[in-house]
Amino acid sequence: MTDLIRSWVETANDADSPFPLNNLPFGVFSAGDTPRCATAIGDKVLDLSALQSAGLLPDHGFDTPALNSFMGKGKEAWADVRQTLTDLLREGAEQDVVKDALHAMDSVTMHLPFTVAEYTDFYAGRQHAFNVGSLFRDPANALPPNWLHIPIGYNGRASTVVVSGTDFHRPMGQMKGPQDDMPSFGPCKRLDIELEMGAVVGVPSEMGAPISVDEANEMIFGYVLLNDWSARDLQAWEYQPLGPFQAKAFATTISPWVVTKAALHAFRCDTPEREKELLPHIKDTGPMLYDIDLSVTMTAPGGAPTVICETNYNTLYYSAAQQLAHHASSGCAMRTGDLLGSGTISGPEKGMFGSLLEMTWGGKETLTLEGGETRTFIEDGDTLALHGHAQGNGYRIGFGPCTGTVLPAKGT
Amino acid sequence: MTDLIRSWVETANDADSPFPLNNLPFGVFSAGDTPRCATAIGDKVLDLSALQSAGLLPDHGFDTPALNSFMGKGKEAWADVRQTLTDLLREGAEQDVVKDALHAMDSVTMHLPFTVAEYTDFYAGRQHAFNVGSLFRDPANALPPNWLHIPIGYNGRASTVVVSGTDFHRPMGQMKGPQDDMPSFGPCKRLDIELEMGAVVGVPSEMGAPISVDEANEMIFGYVLLNDWSARDLQAWEYQPLGPFQAKAFATTISPWVVTKAALHAFRCDTPEREKELLPHIKDTGPMLYDIDLSVTMTAPGGAPTVICETNYNTLYYSAAQQLAHHASSGCAMRTGDLLGSGTISGPEKGMFGSLLEMTWGGKETLTLEGGETRTFIEDGDTLALHGHAQGNGYRIGFGPCTGTVLPAKGT
Repeated sequence: MTDLIRSWVETANDADSPFPLNNLPFGVFSAGDTPRCATAIGDKVLDLSALQSAGLLPDHGFDTPALNSFMGKGKEAWADVRQTLTDLLREGAEQDVVKDALHAMDSVTMHLPFTVAEYTDFYAGRQHAFNVGSLFRDPANALPPNWLHIPIGYNGRASTVVVSGTDFHRPMGQMKGPQDDMPSFGPCKRLDIELEMGAVVGVPSEMGAPISVDEANEMIFGYVLLNDWSARDLQAWEYQPLGPFQAKAFATTISPWVVTKAALHAFRCDTPEREKELLPHIKDTGPMLYDIDLSVTMTAPGGAPTVICETNYNTLYYSAAQQLAHHASSGCAMRTGDLLGSGTISGPEKGMFGSLLEMTWGGKETLTLEGGETRTFIEDGDTLALHGHAQGNGYRIGFGPCTGTVLPAKGT
Repeated sequence: MTDLIRSWVETANDADSPFPLNNLPFGVFSAGDTPRCATAIGDKVLDLSALQSAGLLPDHGFDTPALNSFMGKGKEAWADVRQTLTDLLREGAEQDVVKDALHAMDSVTMHLPFTVAEYTDFYAGRQHAFNVGSLFRDPANALPPNWLHIPIGYNGRASTVVVSGTDFHRPMGQMKGPQDDMPSFGPCKRLDIELEMGAVVGVPSEMGAPISVDEANEMIFGYVLLNDWSARDLQAWEYQPLGPFQAKAFATTISPWVVTKAALHAFRCDTPEREKELLPHIKDTGPMLYDIDLSVTMTAPGGAPTVICETNYNTLYYSAAQQLAHHASSGCAMRTGDLLGSGTISGPEKGMFGSLLEMTWGGKETLTLEGGETRTFIEDGDTLALHGHAQGNGYRIGFGPCTGTVLPAKGT
């Protein structure tokens, strides 16, 4: 466990700041002008396009409104930029050109940090897979037979991946209850979240070129918080036999800062013990999960946030590197900007479940929020937020907000 | 049914030319130089970037290596360009600037005609859904209960959509037979095709803005042939509960020419009679399928092509417009360059089935090719080709080739 690296940006040295000098996440911001790349330090955003213009950073496309150019450059470029930024922001290194490139974080707008090439959602939480299998299918055979052998995943929709703070309308869709003769079309009645982490692919791979778990790990640029909003009634009706489609297509929220592998290095941990030996192409080769505390808050209109889930990223059964190696195993080309959702991160006990479906056991139980309101699924006006950080010695590596408020369905 | 429009490019007037003046499909070609946009006329490719440079066409980005800019312009721009090209290529209108922009089709290289934003694969063939349901699941309940109410689809992988003529290696993957104790990893043993058409989205839609079937139809720029190569052994092991993933991720082949809705207008036809009334958001509002004859040929190494399937696009249960309206129904944003696979097009009888899985009934029966070789699934070196055309009075609207040869798995 490493210690805090002190910065001349004083707020970065606060023990509870999400953005100490040890973090240096990457994002895209604007200040009433053109979106461009940035890092976060304390309560400030540092404009990397200004540093690039001043010749303090190489041209990695920091003047564009997406991190993709930099993400595609690979680990040497990532390490060089991290070292340069660490040197520029270290205690005692204060200089005007860098000071002039700082903006108060609460005065800027954060944008989607990268152009999402394609979005894949996995299903790597053992407890979640068991819970959902019990609720949607058969409790006696809840875990699918393939689950312990391959990281199960499906292709999601990239066009509706949005940055934290993007509100959206409750989805419409077709649904049919077991008692109904015919399906109906209308606003989703069982709107849910899924607490996930997203792995962001930096370095691409060629079509027809499978990759090892170690190669996959080197291709990953960093991680974000990810809320895979889900319409459970649409999902129950549509998902057989080809998987979730419109139930997951209306919005996926990510945090504005991509936290790099380097920032998380001190928090690496192993996957849980294997219940079945994995085949060589996806076998663990080292610690590639991370010890990241995660929580979810729910806020009713006019109410106060209530913590409804606390869990940890280290409970997942498969690492993102294993998922990525599996993803390319058939010869599938992976691209800069591919986003891999981890799957819902549910710990082994109630209070650790990462979806309302699980927390309320299919809507049979209610949650009581601060102020006394009760919920099974999300109601209009509710705000859901994911929170995450890795805890170091006197500092923490944070991800920033991952928040969305659900507006009423259009026309209702 | 309209008649042939005669062109001064004589080969375009041949009754069996796929590219008469009535067609005017769009694609991307190069002649040892930079890829740029083109149309096809007879046995020639017409360089649209040259016509744009000469001021004969507006700037629709015809000098770029993708049709996306033009596709996003919408129906007025599409109609204007079609009218201009018709006038320039009509019998008697010959002029040097246009003649100089012609290239012999057999001397050029065709490229992917547009940048695929996202790829979605549907399942709109009733016979195919019944056949696959019988083979993979339960013959007594072969058609899923949702199938007659919504166009079932799943998100596919856009990064491996390739143009006709792109050979690829047999995919590797994890599989497990019902008799096996443990899964194994190796080359796919049950490699298959799926005969499909692809609809290409031109005009985008906003997140949170569902669209009607009529609006969806107006957003569609045109159609291509599409071969959704499938690894059946990988698919059987992986697809429950979240749908096909690596079994479909290694390659999807499309024809190089996008045939426009205008070219197909004379061949519109209705979907088959509804077995269940559709809900209003996806109800038929007019004829949006097309009468397009389709066939598949299989060629063993050194052998001659054998026709293994003959069917028609008009056998599908849902039109692409209905699929697109459903796709946006939850609020999913649709984008210029989205590619929607129709689903496998299997007619009601043997000889009309659009996949080897169905033709050989899960590998239990064999196909005999010209020359006497037999096949259940695809062997290394085999070439599969889709063919399609709409038949007019003395002319046909063709799509060009949709061909791929399977190379041995890497390392074997």
